[in-house]
Amino acid sequence: MSSLSFTHDTLSQRVVLDSGRVIERVLSEAAQLGMSRPMLISTEGTHEVADKLAAVLSPAEHWRDAVQHVPRSVADAATTVARNSGVDGLISIGGGSATGLAKAIALDTSLPIIAVPTTYAASEATPVWGITEERTKTTGVNPVVLPAVVIYDADLVATLPPGMAIASGLNALAHSIDSLWAPQADPINRALGLESARALASALRALSADSGQQAREQALYGCYLSGVAFASAGSGLHHKICHVLGGTFNLPHAETHAVVLRYVAALNLPAIPEISEALAQALGGDDAITELNGLYQEIGASGSLSELGMPESGITEAVDRVLAAAPTGNPRKVTHDNITALITAAFHGDDPARINEFVEGRTR
Amino acid sequence: MSSLSFTHDTLSQRVVLDSGRVIERVLSEAAQLGMSRPMLISTEGTHEVADKLAAVLSPAEHWRDAVQHVPRSVADAATTVARNSGVDGLISIGGGSATGLAKAIALDTSLPIIAVPTTYAASEATPVWGITEERTKTTGVNPVVLPAVVIYDADLVATLPPGMAIASGLNALAHSIDSLWAPQADPINRALGLESARALASALRALSADSGQQAREQALYGCYLSGVAFASAGSGLHHKICHVLGGTFNLPHAETHAVVLRYVAALNLPAIPEISEALAQALGGDDAITELNGLYQEIGASGSLSELGMPESGITEAVDRVLAAAPTGNPRKVTHDNITALITAAFHGDDPARINEFVEGRTR
Repeated sequence: MSSLSFTHDTLSQRVVLDSGRVIERVLSEAAQLGMSRPMLISTEGTHEVADKLAAVLSPAEHWRDAVQHVPRSVADAATTVARNSGVDGLISIGGGSATGLAKAIALDTSLPIIAVPTTYAASEATPVWGITEERTKTTGVNPVVLPAVVIYDADLVATLPPGMAIASGLNALAHSIDSLWAPQADPINRALGLESARALASALRALSADSGQQAREQALYGCYLSGVAFASAGSGLHHKICHVLGGTFNLPHAETHAVVLRYVAALNLPAIPEISEALAQALGGDDAITELNGLYQEIGASGSLSELGMPESGITEAVDRVLAAAPTGNPRKVTHDNITALITAAFHGDDPARINEFVEGRTR
Repeated sequence: MSSLSFTHDTLSQRVVLDSGRVIERVLSEAAQLGMSRPMLISTEGTHEVADKLAAVLSPAEHWRDAVQHVPRSVADAATTVARNSGVDGLISIGGGSATGLAKAIALDTSLPIIAVPTTYAASEATPVWGITEERTKTTGVNPVVLPAVVIYDADLVATLPPGMAIASGLNALAHSIDSLWAPQADPINRALGLESARALASALRALSADSGQQAREQALYGCYLSGVAFASAGSGLHHKICHVLGGTFNLPHAETHAVVLRYVAALNLPAIPEISEALAQALGGDDAITELNGLYQEIGASGSLSELGMPESGITEAVDRVLAAAPTGNPRKVTHDNITALITAAFHGDDPARINEFVEGRTR
C-alpha cells in the first residue's frame, strides 16, 4: 500500500443510455432543463434523426451541416444566430463536429448543451473545446462547455462502417489507458479508466464479430467513461506522441492512436506493476501487454505507421519532437533511445514486447 | 454481454486528500471559492484542529459543539447566525454531526460547504441531509447540500479507536456493496462501488494490523467513493434491514451494518454471478462470499446481532418490518423464508454461507 495524495475534480453531468428512445429522451431532458427555444445542431450524416427530432421539438433554430474542426467563421455565425433568436439551449446530434460547434457556442453564451453522440469520439464527456482559425486549432478547457446531458442510443452508431468502429473504439481505449499514467492521474480517474478499458475491450471483441446492439451499447458506455477519465487525468505520453505524428505527417487520427497505443503501453506498463496488473484484470487476463496484443490480433487491428503513410525518413524528426513534447512524470523516463525504439517498432508494426528488449539490450 | 440502459447523474465536487496539510488546503480552497466571511463548524472532538484553523482563517463565526442527528432547534439557530453575520461559506470539521449541521444551513441558504471529515461516515460525499425534530429524523436529497470541496487529512482520523475504525470501515464497505444491487444501481456507480470495496478491504486489513497513515489514507479514499456510489445507487436491501433493526431495537449504527453485511451479501450475490465475480476480484480472490468472510475473520469482526443487544424474540417483528420495507428489484426475491433465515443467522452469528442452504433445503 502506498501513500495517497490527490486533488480530483468531478464535473456535473447527466448521462443517459437508452437505445431506440433517443427522440423521447431528448424531449424529456430538454423539458427538464427548461429549454423552450432550443437550437438544434446536426451534421451531414445525422439529418435523418435530426429531422425526426425537429418535427416534434420545433426548435427555434436548426443549424445543419456542422463541419470538422469547428472553423472560427462557422462558430461566430452560429453564435450570432443563437443570440439573435433568443435560443435558450443547444442540442447537438452527431460526432465531434456537432458537439464541437455546440461547445463553441456555449463558450460565448453559457447555454446548456444536450449532446447526442453518433460516434465513439467522447468529446461529449469532456470540458475541452477547440476552434480552428487559419489552419491553427486553439483548444481550451472550460466547464461551461461540458454538456449538461449526454444521450446515447446504440441505434445511432449502427451504421458506422466496421473498420471505423474498431479504429474509433481503439482510439477510445487509448483515452482509457493513457489516463492511467497521465499528469493528473489519480485513483478516481484511474478507476474510471480501468472500467472503461474493461468495457471497451469486451465491446471491441464483440464489434469485430457481429456489431450487435449490445456490443454498441458497451462501446458507447466504455467510450463515455474513457472521455471522463481522460478529461480528468490529462494528456499522457500516448497522446503527445500521436499529436506529434498526426501534425507532422498528417496521419489519420483514430488509426494513428490505434497503432501507437500498444507500443506506449509496452514501454510504460513494466514501470507501474500494480496498475499493469489492474489493467490486465480489466482486459481479462494476467499480463496487460499480452492481453492488449491478443485483443489487437483478435480484432485484426495490428497495423503500422508505415501503412498509414508515415515516411521512414521521418522517424528522426518525430523522435525529436516527441522528446520536446513529452509530459513530465511519465512512469518510464523518456529518452532518445526508448522513443526511437518505440517509433521504429510502431513504424514497422513489430511486436511491441520487443521495445524493452531493444532498449535494454540494444539488440535491434 | 447484456443490454445496457441507465440514467446516471454525476454531481460536481472537488475532493482533496493531502495528509498533514489540512490547514493550508482549507485556506487555499476557501480563497478559491471566494469565501471571505466563512462560518466554521466544529464538534466536541475537533476543537483542537478547528482552533488552529480559526487562528489563521479568522472566520466570521465559529459554531462549536455541533451535535449528533442535527436537532431542528440547532439547525435553525445556526442558520440565523449565518444569515445575521453575512456569512459567505461554511467550513465543517468533524464527522456526521459537523457535516450534517453545515448541510442543514446550506439547505436554507445555498451557502457552499468545505467539509473536513474526521471519521469514515462519508456524509461529505452525498447530497443527503437530515434534521431531527421530536425524535423523528426527516431526510431529503438536494444537490445544494453537497459540499463543494472535501478535504481529507489522514492525521485527523489517527485518534479513532481501532474498534471504531474497523466498524466504521465496515459500515463504509456496506455502502460499497449495497450499491451493487440498489434500486438505481448502474454500471458507473457499480464501478465506483467495486473500487471503493477494493480500497476498503485492503485498508481494513492494514488498519487491523497497525493503523498506519497509508492505511488511513486508503480508508478515507475508499470511504469517499463508497459514499459517492451509495448516493448515486440508493439504499439497497442491506440498508433497509439495518434501518429496521436500528430503529426497532436501538442497535448501534456502524456495528449493526458491520454484522448484517455478510448475510445480505450471502443472500444476494449468488443471484448476480457477474457482479459477484467482479466483487471477488475487488476483494482479492475468486469467490466474493468466501473473501468477505475471510476479511471479517482476519480483522476480528465476525459479530452477531445478539451481541449488539437485539432480543431473540424480536426476530419475527424484524422480518415483518423488513418485508414491508424491502426495495423493489432486489436481485434475490425477498421472501418470509429467506429474510427469516438471514436475520436468524445474523442474530446467532452463524456462517453466512448457510443462509442459502437453509432457504433451499430448510435444513435448519
